[in-house]
Amino acid sequence: MSTTERPDSWAITSPRSDRVKRIAALSGRSARRKQGRFRVEGPQAVRSLLQHSAPLVRELYVTADGATAHPDILELADAHAIRPRDVDPSILRAMTRGEEDGAAASMAAPQGVLAVADLPSASLHAVLDTLPDGPLTALVLHGVQDPGNAGTLIRAADASGARAVLATTGTVDLYSPKVVRSATGSLFHLPVVAGIAPEDLSPALHDAGISVLATSGYADHDLFTTELPTRGAWIMGNEAHGLPQEMLDTADLAVRIPLAGDAESLNVAIAATVCLFETLRRR
Amino acid sequence: MSTTERPDSWAITSPRSDRVKRIAALSGRSARRKQGRFRVEGPQAVRSLLQHSAPLVRELYVTADGATAHPDILELADAHAIRPRDVDPSILRAMTRGEEDGAAASMAAPQGVLAVADLPSASLHAVLDTLPDGPLTALVLHGVQDPGNAGTLIRAADASGARAVLATTGTVDLYSPKVVRSATGSLFHLPVVAGIAPEDLSPALHDAGISVLATSGYADHDLFTTELPTRGAWIMGNEAHGLPQEMLDTADLAVRIPLAGDAESLNVAIAATVCLFETLRRR
Repeated sequence: MSTTERPDSWAITSPRSDRVKRIAALSGRSARRKQGRFRVEGPQAVRSLLQHSAPLVRELYVTADGATAHPDILELADAHAIRPRDVDPSILRAMTRGEEDGAAASMAAPQGVLAVADLPSASLHAVLDTLPDGPLTALVLHGVQDPGNAGTLIRAADASGARAVLATTGTVDLYSPKVVRSATGSLFHLPVVAGIAPEDLSPALHDAGISVLATSGYADHDLFTTELPTRGAWIMGNEAHGLPQEMLDTADLAVRIPLAGDAESLNVAIAATVCLFETLRRR
Repeated sequence: MSTTERPDSWAITSPRSDRVKRIAALSGRSARRKQGRFRVEGPQAVRSLLQHSAPLVRELYVTADGATAHPDILELADAHAIRPRDVDPSILRAMTRGEEDGAAASMAAPQGVLAVADLPSASLHAVLDTLPDGPLTALVLHGVQDPGNAGTLIRAADASGARAVLATTGTVDLYSPKVVRSATGSLFHLPVVAGIAPEDLSPALHDAGISVLATSGYADHDLFTTELPTRGAWIMGNEAHGLPQEMLDTADLAVRIPLAGDAESLNVAIAATVCLFETLRRR
C-alpha cells in the first residue's frame, strides 16, 4: 500500500499534514523558490487567477461556505478542468499560517477560497515582445520593499491602463502572500516580470521603443506641464531612499510632482498614482 | 519622601515603570481617551509636531543616538521651552510595546525620538471658521478602517494642498500610533478634526461654502472632464463598502474615476490621490 498523497482522492483532515505544511511554507520566499509555486488567497484574487492565468493553477481549495458564496469560482474552475477540493475552514487557516508577520496572519482570512499556482516564468524580453505598438505605459518597481505598497502599485498600474509591471532584483517578492493580497487580482490582469537585473532594464526598454520616466524632487520639469512620451515606463524606487542616482541617470525624462502643502515627500504608491493617472488623463 | 514621579529630575531606568506602562498603553484607543493624550514616534513625526503643534507636547524622550542624529529636534524643543529627557533605547522600545498588532510593534522602531502630546480638541466649526476664502480643497474620511490607509490619505491630502482633513465617527482613530506613523508628520501640518457626526458634516460644509464631492463607479460625470467647484471636500469611504448611499445622496457632485485596465476598483488611498491631485492640477 502506497502512502503517496493522491491530489483528488484523499481528504485533508489534519492541519498538520504534509500537504498543509507545504502550502503554509509558501509564506516564505525560499519555499516558493524551492517549490516553484505561490499561494493565492481569497475569492477576488483566485477568481482573477482563474480568469487570466488558469494554466498556472495547480491546486484549488474551497470550504463549504466558500462554495456557496462563490459559485462563479467553481464554474470557472470547471471550465478549466480544475478540480477543487473541499476543505474545512480550519485546514484553510492552517494553510495560511507561517506568515512573515503577525498582522498579516491575523488579517489573512482566506474567505473560503485558496489556490496554489506555479510561479510565472516570463522573461523581460518575452513580455516586451508581446506589447502592442502605439501609446503604452508600464510601471517599474526598483527596490520597493513594503509588500502592501507593491500590491497597491500593481493595482494602480492596472487601473490606470498600464500594460506591464516590471520589478528589478532587490524589490520585494511580488509573489509573497501579502503582495498577492494587496494587489487584489491585478497581479494576474497584466504581464508581470520580476527579478530583472537593474542594468538590463533601460537597454531592454529602449530596444522596445519605451522611454524611461522617473520622478525626482529636484527635477526641472513639472509633471503637469511637461510633454510625456507616448511610450513610457515609470520607475519607482525604495520607500526610504527613492531612486539611486545611477538609475536616475538612465532615465530619458525626470519630472517633479508638484507638492502644494507642507509635505516633504510622497508615499511611493501615491507618487506612482499621480504619474500613472496623469499619463492616462492625457490619452 | 514623596514617590511622585517628577518629570524632569527622575531618570527612567526601568522598562516596567508606571510612566513607561502609561505611555505604552497609548497604543490603545481607550487609554488615549482616558489620558487625553497620544504618542508620536520617530524624528520626522516629532519634528513636525514641534514645528506645527508645539503647545500640544507634554513629554519628549530622546536617546543619546537620537540626540546626536537630530540636533534640530533638540533646538526646536528648546525654542518651545520643552525639556527632553534622556532615555535608553530599551526604555523607548518598552514605550512602544502594546501595539494593536504584531507587525506594527516590530516595525515601530522609534529611531531614538518619542513624544507624548495632548489630543487636539478643535471642533468642526472652529476649523471651518479658520479656513481662508477662495479656492480650497478638503478631505473627509468616512469609515476608512485601515490605519495605514488613513495615514497615507492624510499625507496625500497635505501634499496636494488640501486645507483640512475631517473624519466622521466610525473612521479609524487618527491618533493611533500606526496612523501617526504613516502620516509622517502631515497630521500636524494641517487642521484635522475627528469624531464628526455624519449627519453634521454636509450642513457644516455647506455653511462654509464648501461643496461635497464624492466618487462612485456609477457616476455619470468623469473626473477628468467635469468642472469641479472651487471650494470642495472629497469624501472617501470604507475600504470594502465605499460610501453608503445616504452619504452619496448628500454630495453636490459625484464623479467616476476613469479605470482603463481590468481592475475592478481602486484602493481608497489611490482614489483619493487621483481626485486630490486632479484638483491641484486644475488650480
